Amino acid sequence: MTFNSKIFGSIILVFVIVFFQSKEAHSQKTNSTFGMVIHGGAGTILKKNMTPELEQAYQSKLKEALQTGYDILKNNGSSMDAVEATINILEDSPLFNAGKGAVFTGDGTHELDASIMDGRTLQAGAVASVKHVKNPITLARLVLEKSPHVMMVGAGAEEFAVQHNLDRVSQYYFYTEKRWKSLQKRKESVEEKTTLVPEKENIKLADKEKGTVGAAALDKAGNLAAGTSTGGMTNKMFGRVGDSPIIGAGTYANNQTCAVSGTGHGEYFMRLLVSYDIHALMAYEGKSLKEAANTVIMKKLEELGGTGGIIAIDKDGNIAMPFNTDGMYRGYIRENGETVVKIYKN
Amino acid sequence: MTFNSKIFGSIILVFVIVFFQSKEAHSQKTNSTFGMVIHGGAGTILKKNMTPELEQAYQSKLKEALQTGYDILKNNGSSMDAVEATINILEDSPLFNAGKGAVFTGDGTHELDASIMDGRTLQAGAVASVKHVKNPITLARLVLEKSPHVMMVGAGAEEFAVQHNLDRVSQYYFYTEKRWKSLQKRKESVEEKTTLVPEKENIKLADKEKGTVGAAALDKAGNLAAGTSTGGMTNKMFGRVGDSPIIGAGTYANNQTCAVSGTGHGEYFMRLLVSYDIHALMAYEGKSLKEAANTVIMKKLEELGGTGGIIAIDKDGNIAMPFNTDGMYRGYIRENGETVVKIYKN
Repeated sequence: MTFNSKIFGSIILVFVIVFFQSKEAHSQKTNSTFGMVIHGGAGTILKKNMTPELEQAYQSKLKEALQTGYDILKNNGSSMDAVEATINILEDSPLFNAGKGAVFTGDGTHELDASIMDGRTLQAGAVASVKHVKNPITLARLVLEKSPHVMMVGAGAEEFAVQHNLDRVSQYYFYTEKRWKSLQKRKESVEEKTTLVPEKENIKLADKEKGTVGAAALDKAGNLAAGTSTGGMTNKMFGRVGDSPIIGAGTYANNQTCAVSGTGHGEYFMRLLVSYDIHALMAYEGKSLKEAANTVIMKKLEELGGTGGIIAIDKDGNIAMPFNTDGMYRGYIRENGETVVKIYKN
Repeated sequence: MTFNSKIFGSIILVFVIVFFQSKEAHSQKTNSTFGMVIHGGAGTILKKNMTPELEQAYQSKLKEALQTGYDILKNNGSSMDAVEATINILEDSPLFNAGKGAVFTGDGTHELDASIMDGRTLQAGAVASVKHVKNPITLARLVLEKSPHVMMVGAGAEEFAVQHNLDRVSQYYFYTEKRWKSLQKRKESVEEKTTLVPEKENIKLADKEKGTVGAAALDKAGNLAAGTSTGGMTNKMFGRVGDSPIIGAGTYANNQTCAVSGTGHGEYFMRLLVSYDIHALMAYEGKSLKEAANTVIMKKLEELGGTGGIIAIDKDGNIAMPFNTDGMYRGYIRENGETVVKIYKN
């Protein structure tokens, strides 16, 4: 009996251990938070100016982008892969001012900027003023991975793309009738006719059209990443660089806190270091993601007179999408696979 | 008697008021702290590699630069004017890797970057990859004052300089035998021969030569400003942009806290947002300038594997000049007009 009860006891113990171990493993798997959040630009986006078809087109493209990132994250892919693939979808769509849908400079050309940051290693890559690269976010990642540099601009960045056999396209690839008409309209406006570089007072005009894209992701391993891609401002002076390719302004990621991508009036984002500031408020003041993001967008940006918004995800999977404009194309997806996509303020 | 005592009382009162008002005005004037701090690059600067003549040349040029800024500040000039004029002196000297003494790119050309920030308004201006501008810091200030933008690069920045009749020079202006020999030596090194863009592992070579210049100033009105100017890295791939023209990385100023200019391995300064981080640690954690600057340079930069240093002045006139390299050309000047100039670690 004693022997049997010992055996019985041991068997019970083994079962208990196996049960709890499997439960723990299971809970680690299903509880591992992951998710991603994206934007397709903030600005004067009003329902009255939108057709149902266009609204539908934006919503379905945002959903497709989120789903692409989700599939990567769900299959244990990295947040860097999810961010790049998601932004590629938005870059390839003419709906957004990035990649295919890039706006025209004052010169009638296209100049694209992008940046990406890895929250695990704090490595970053950025490109500005590239003219022949189909997917600038992919070139930014290449700069991060294959060069000793963080930022490359213009012809040097193009040369680097050639070296690495990246997809290159002619400037005609970026032609869309909608953007061409925008440029003509902008050029007809009296205020901007006078000088090649518009006066400071006229800068508000540039707010009319936005469509920068960005993504931030948290993967199952707990690694954060963020990326941003843009075609810049319609009728901008060639050579102007905004916040999108600036680490800490348009893009920032740090596993310690959060991953952020911004969109809006770039100059204000640069002066305020919007993305890094959200990290700093979390790291140094212990603010939550929501508090930090609201402080920077709804208070600091507002007070300085800037407009725009950000999307962000923190290390615990919390999401924030504040903006101080009429609308922002935005959405997120979490572990359960439900996508939330929004355009207007409410 | 009552009438006389009233008159007497009034006269006394007037005297008392005048006395205290004049005392206050006087104390405001003589107590108003001002000062400036500069650097001429950090890196492998060892006494054994230096001749007494060269050491003397560096010291006297740094003193001349400090004196130029001091004279402006003493005569109630603005910190912005002091920073620009001081950096102009360093740009015009062949001793430093900025302006005249800019290093060669791998292509045998010169590409210059600069940025400046006004701590009072948080306005900023930056230029990158300019080839024909004698004083890039002056162009950066022009971007701040005369354009709606913060950053302009390449041909667009050159065009902007032409529009505003800024001094332009041919690429031959930047030729110095010393820098040309440095390029040849670098090109002969086996490691960098293989690819146009060096592999990540070879990046440490670039540390051999530094000479970015920068200045930070506090004026009598309590306004802070900072600026940085550089010729980049010897043998760098054309199009590479470092931290010098990036607001928050190489340059930052905010009246609330401090003004900072950095020098070193730019990629690390960009990933860490070195200049903004010093501000953030002061603003959010209440750290002193010294504590904040040491945390970022001696701890964060060191841990990430980066090298370099910063110079900074805070709103109360405190000065910090930490670096984690063998040496940094540096110096400061305060109200009393005494200049302190140093090169090596001790």
